[in-house]
Amino acid sequence: MLKPSWVTSANTADTPFPLNNLPYGVFSTASLTPRCGVAIGDQIFDCQAAEMSGLISGLYEAPLFAQADWNAVMEAGKSLWSALRQRLTDILADGSVSQTAAQACLIAQSDAEMHLPFRVSEFTDFYAGRHHATNVGTMFRGAENALPPNWLHIPIGYNGRASSVVISGTDIQRPWGQLKAPDAESPVFAPSRRFDFELEMGAIVGTASSGQVSVDTADNMIFGYVLLNDWSARDIQAWEYQPLGPFQAKATATSISPWIVTTEALAPFRCMTPPREVPLLPHLQDTGPMLFDIDLRVTHTTPEGADTVLADTNYREMYYSSAQQLAHHTSSGCPMRSGDLLGSGTISGARETERGSLLELSWGGKTPVSLSDGSSRSFIEDGDMITLEGQAKGDGYQIGFGHCVGTVLPADTK
Amino acid sequence: MLKPSWVTSANTADTPFPLNNLPYGVFSTASLTPRCGVAIGDQIFDCQAAEMSGLISGLYEAPLFAQADWNAVMEAGKSLWSALRQRLTDILADGSVSQTAAQACLIAQSDAEMHLPFRVSEFTDFYAGRHHATNVGTMFRGAENALPPNWLHIPIGYNGRASSVVISGTDIQRPWGQLKAPDAESPVFAPSRRFDFELEMGAIVGTASSGQVSVDTADNMIFGYVLLNDWSARDIQAWEYQPLGPFQAKATATSISPWIVTTEALAPFRCMTPPREVPLLPHLQDTGPMLFDIDLRVTHTTPEGADTVLADTNYREMYYSSAQQLAHHTSSGCPMRSGDLLGSGTISGARETERGSLLELSWGGKTPVSLSDGSSRSFIEDGDMITLEGQAKGDGYQIGFGHCVGTVLPADTK
Repeated sequence: MLKPSWVTSANTADTPFPLNNLPYGVFSTASLTPRCGVAIGDQIFDCQAAEMSGLISGLYEAPLFAQADWNAVMEAGKSLWSALRQRLTDILADGSVSQTAAQACLIAQSDAEMHLPFRVSEFTDFYAGRHHATNVGTMFRGAENALPPNWLHIPIGYNGRASSVVISGTDIQRPWGQLKAPDAESPVFAPSRRFDFELEMGAIVGTASSGQVSVDTADNMIFGYVLLNDWSARDIQAWEYQPLGPFQAKATATSISPWIVTTEALAPFRCMTPPREVPLLPHLQDTGPMLFDIDLRVTHTTPEGADTVLADTNYREMYYSSAQQLAHHTSSGCPMRSGDLLGSGTISGARETERGSLLELSWGGKTPVSLSDGSSRSFIEDGDMITLEGQAKGDGYQIGFGHCVGTVLPADTK
Repeated sequence: MLKPSWVTSANTADTPFPLNNLPYGVFSTASLTPRCGVAIGDQIFDCQAAEMSGLISGLYEAPLFAQADWNAVMEAGKSLWSALRQRLTDILADGSVSQTAAQACLIAQSDAEMHLPFRVSEFTDFYAGRHHATNVGTMFRGAENALPPNWLHIPIGYNGRASSVVISGTDIQRPWGQLKAPDAESPVFAPSRRFDFELEMGAIVGTASSGQVSVDTADNMIFGYVLLNDWSARDIQAWEYQPLGPFQAKATATSISPWIVTTEALAPFRCMTPPREVPLLPHLQDTGPMLFDIDLRVTHTTPEGADTVLADTNYREMYYSSAQQLAHHTSSGCPMRSGDLLGSGTISGARETERGSLLELSWGGKTPVSLSDGSSRSFIEDGDMITLEGQAKGDGYQIGFGHCVGTVLPADTK
């Protein structure tokens, strides 16, 4: 049920940001320096101003909003997360006694510029979508060997590059890299010709750990989720990835959506992972619903403005939850830190219209995708814009993630 | 030639820390909180005390030593690095006018505990030793396919885990992980049985970059070098590494030596990389000597204290320099940050006694290594200690790296 707010724009069935959501971002305006805020309807509630005015006080011994990121809140741990969400709900709910004071803390989203909502400690990217892994494996190794032997036993992952994580709206410059055609004798250094997006969810680690943690503990460590586009140069990847995995192919940029949707806001949308084909070892087994039912869409926009929906899918297609991924991540004793970002892996459904990358949609370039203006694409062309959207659909309301957008600019000239 | 210092212990041919060296670390004592210091002979020069007393002032607008790491100096850039080194040389040189004031800033190394000398932003590990890559490739894929096709064209690397970097002396707990024997039907979750060390050098990025940088620029970005032991669980690695590379096998810990030996101190020991078998693409070509002539040794110590030298080799065995690795790292536009740590990859020479890992020394466990007490090792056993040492040998002096030490403790009981 929609929870009513005195912010009237939050009381519609199609706002991404009703009182039920309360996602966390960092914004600035022409007159305000970057600071933490909460989306409510078409407004942002300025947490720094609220803290300074005493509206959010008594929750924690130290200031939570003195800095322009959510790391202080994340590090404070799960009981603070709940207390803060409850306080924000009380302040913004219909009939709130704080309405007058809180009104002074509202800024129109249309006046705000968004920034990275947290300092990314390290970035790990997984490969946990079965349809994606099967599609890519079939293209690269044939249908019989599509899934690597370890795939059904481990949520396969690799370490990515935190320095390349950017906020939605940041332009993405086509990378250069070493490319080698299968029949060429030597590689060349040239702009990528097979530049792609990957539709993913990003899970944000809130509380740190040392030593191995259980799936249950891992689930409790996750502060929230964002949309994530792991831009990928398929031709650089093909040449570099053996034997140590993707490196420069994935290091140009990873875009995330500006609003952290909290694990608590997503609680009504928890769902089980799909049935196991082979049982997982005990330390990786689900103990409850830890995946989420979130509708996802990818839209392509040409430089001329023609929109085409490339794919519709859902986060529940993943074989492994972020909690399982995080538990595996700690299995060797790897310390996790507040601000670690875990990419889910590309989320593809079973159908051709549910594939979360152009590599899959165009089947490696063999079947270019038709666009609404009559043109087609095998991979991303200069000037193309890719938009990811996500929402969990409740009864009379939705929990929206906003957009994760990036436009690909031409490679620089050397 | 040895540069004479008024710190008399620095004036011997076998001290690792003559005035020529001046490596940077972070130390504490029973009465001093962690702070930056410079090794000189058997003493440490306390930079925080020196800055507060005005001995190191006028070099930079802000305090360089208010924090217990070298990141402020690193971020300040190369001209500051040179000016600081010159100032420290002046202060500590024989005949220095500052001797009396500086004497008050000396602490005996024997009274000090060492800490990580810098905040590690991200950790990348390379695979740039040709003998190591050939040895490992021969074991895994046969002699004909030992070197992957890309190996002579790219310094292959993967992103590691900064959170797992620890200071020399930290005990290393044997990791658990998924292991699967070749003839087993399913994996098990158990303590690693093939736990190994890797002898590497670590290059520390001092100045940040965005966009692609040249090999020359990369060389100028490197603040200094440390010894690095990339602890590796070979059995976890064998099962997990296809198709996305090493992950939990390398996430337990990476040890580094406490003293950052600056690029400037190593200048007399620059040498060229080995001749190219095939020419590199222009953006990766050497423009001068960017490798270093540094003798390296690995010693194994049993729990009972029996020492065995496992390997003697030299950093000049690498096929790619750290500058080439860093240039490649930026080739896709990957942003680099101050505090990024680049592992060279395992350094093995051509001979059997020059191999920088037990995987190679015992040839995958087939030829266990004999120890001085008559026992043998295929991989590391509980209680074993591994010590890395390094020194560049000058005329009447050496530039020492100190030690990089770790003892392997039993896996925890679950």
